Amino acid sequence: MGKAIFYHAGCPVCVSAEQDILQFIPADQVEVIHLGTDKEKVKDADAAGVKSVPALVLANGNVLHINFGAGIDDLK
Amino acid sequence: MGKAIFYHAGCPVCVSAEQDILQFIPADQVEVIHLGTDKEKVKDADAAGVKSVPALVLANGNVLHINFGAGIDDLK
Repeated sequence: MGKAIFYHAGCPVCVSAEQDILQFIPADQVEVIHLGTDKEKVKDADAAGVKSVPALVLANGNVLHINFGAGIDDLK
Repeated sequence: MGKAIFYHAGCPVCVSAEQDILQFIPADQVEVIHLGTDKEKVKDADAAGVKSVPALVLANGNVLHINFGAGIDDLK
């Protein structure tokens, strides 16, 4: 199984969710991407089906939107 | 640390999220509650801050709303 990707944008909701999620997923099984600072990854997130951050894209392609920090369109 | 509680209502979004989440959290560390069949637990979920299902209430009290299956008010 490949890595999961946790997309966030540095917002308080994102940071809180990240801390909670990383309790469960070993750090070597998840890549954390900050879309606020890594703007070129926004299109990858969009293509993966991410509608808002924070979101966790699993290795199986499923997207888990976790609470709501910001819409993906606001990050483009 | 106590157990996390995964609240759902049997909806397709809930079932999918449950399968994904239970990949990460060992079964003995999470209690799964079906609010559609266990109606008396709806008030507990509400009190914990659950606004929609599926949702994961962590042992630290944080609530992670994962995608959106149904609003808590629709389950009352």
